[in-house]
Amino acid sequence: MKLTIGTDIGGTNTCSGVVDAEGNVLKKAAFKTADYDTAEAYADALAGSVQELMASFEGKSVEWAGLGIGAPNGNQRSGTIEHAPNLKFDGIVPLAQMVRDRLDLPKVELTNDANAAAVGEKLYGAAKDYDDFIMVTLGTGLGSGVYVNGKLVCGDSGFAGELGHMSVIPDGRYCGFGRRGSLENYCSATGIRRTYFEMLAQRGGPTALDHLKVGEINSKHVADAANVGDPICTATMHFTGRLLGEALASAALLTAPAAFFLFGGPVQAGGILLDTTHEFFEKHLIPTYRGKIKLIVSALPPGDAALLGAAALVAE
Amino acid sequence: MKLTIGTDIGGTNTCSGVVDAEGNVLKKAAFKTADYDTAEAYADALAGSVQELMASFEGKSVEWAGLGIGAPNGNQRSGTIEHAPNLKFDGIVPLAQMVRDRLDLPKVELTNDANAAAVGEKLYGAAKDYDDFIMVTLGTGLGSGVYVNGKLVCGDSGFAGELGHMSVIPDGRYCGFGRRGSLENYCSATGIRRTYFEMLAQRGGPTALDHLKVGEINSKHVADAANVGDPICTATMHFTGRLLGEALASAALLTAPAAFFLFGGPVQAGGILLDTTHEFFEKHLIPTYRGKIKLIVSALPPGDAALLGAAALVAE
Repeated sequence: MKLTIGTDIGGTNTCSGVVDAEGNVLKKAAFKTADYDTAEAYADALAGSVQELMASFEGKSVEWAGLGIGAPNGNQRSGTIEHAPNLKFDGIVPLAQMVRDRLDLPKVELTNDANAAAVGEKLYGAAKDYDDFIMVTLGTGLGSGVYVNGKLVCGDSGFAGELGHMSVIPDGRYCGFGRRGSLENYCSATGIRRTYFEMLAQRGGPTALDHLKVGEINSKHVADAANVGDPICTATMHFTGRLLGEALASAALLTAPAAFFLFGGPVQAGGILLDTTHEFFEKHLIPTYRGKIKLIVSALPPGDAALLGAAALVAE
Repeated sequence: MKLTIGTDIGGTNTCSGVVDAEGNVLKKAAFKTADYDTAEAYADALAGSVQELMASFEGKSVEWAGLGIGAPNGNQRSGTIEHAPNLKFDGIVPLAQMVRDRLDLPKVELTNDANAAAVGEKLYGAAKDYDDFIMVTLGTGLGSGVYVNGKLVCGDSGFAGELGHMSVIPDGRYCGFGRRGSLENYCSATGIRRTYFEMLAQRGGPTALDHLKVGEINSKHVADAANVGDPICTATMHFTGRLLGEALASAALLTAPAAFFLFGGPVQAGGILLDTTHEFFEKHLIPTYRGKIKLIVSALPPGDAALLGAAALVAE
């Protein structure tokens, strides 16, 4: 049987998995990313972890298609990780080549996590029948991957699909590198948490989350409280959905996709956020597009999406 | 020799021209678009005009590559004109097919004017060496055409590249169909005129344009007065450049182009508008893109750009 390996590099953990042609994850392995201070030591650890996974299939008749890697600030064109803020090894790291040198595999490819998710959605998820779509992932940040004519768009620099940095509120929240009001500061899981505190500041409370510690509160708490009627959490999710819907309607203008696929807890939970996003998306589309562009919730399993996306890079 | 024909359909005139392989316009013909009330009558007139052009080359050894048409609301995927607000024949008009039926040519293609300009820039202009770029045309409206991997992006609906409708000022100027604050209401030639009046309202004048009739004032007057130091016109061009620069920095995020090509009087005149656009574009790019994406003034001749772009559709 033909198998691929996918690796999801996160700031905390590096998780690899063996994936079959139908997108089932057959076996997984993980290690702590932060245990390795240099790119060389990290590449050794990654290669070792992948070799162990492969060794566990010894004796079976397996054809290995290759290894796909999803990494923060991953550049698909060059196979490098560039200045990833949450990794210990800074600068431009040619990780794809470093892993190629260490493993005997026909293909090693690398891209960023949201691009990998887009490839995963196309191969194993709900985007199978779509050639022109945009994948949007809501997590700590907001990532995206763009398909045009059945192919992932890399862009000239290799860094296409950075929708999270689109400016949505002029002079809005600070984004970390001099820019302000970016989509991901409002519509990521982290952004939802920030909006909750903003609404609390404006309206004063009480809210259904008063019994929780400030540091504990996350977007799931807010979404759950909104979906049972807490006014401040409802206002938070409504504000988030409005911004997201309007931003997606703007994002549609360049490549005119057939659909947006939405991945991540806050949207996959459905409810007010998804409804409001739909409402303002449709309202802000230009008439030419109205009723023609779908918003579809991702069909990738939340826990394994990053892994599957990475594996899909070489399975295609 | 191999020749193509390009047709530029405007609300007032329909202009066709014969173009050689180097992008020289050898001969032109025009008629009044508004003289024809039905799509059938218009298609007859267009076919007649093109046939006359071709007849003038009789006796020479010409191989006709085909006819390319640039039209308002032109859909490249289907070859139709859909609900063009400035044409007399409403609805969905399959003009490419109607012209194919009337003329004996190997190819008849149709797209919108900005997409045609993008193809023209790639074939005959400054984008020859670029595979990933975005063409932006500033005229009555603001149009755009997107190239990815050396190909014009059509989008699922055939209407990709509608950057002019991107929302840049929440709750800003009214755009005609319920939407507000779109880029083209600020950064097209018409938008610049509107901003001039807004600045005049805010600051009270006098301005260097006080001797002109209100109805006469256009973006060229404002640009010229700005470039010789009139404060209100300078503020107008500065405001326009800031919005345009920021919008292009946002537009870069989806497809990560190597360059934007800017076409239209206001930008091709250079000066304050172009300088300010550059400044705010670079400032608003995410760090990954800084110094990597160029803003380049179109090399298409202003008078013949639409024609050349249309011809390029079939010359490729």
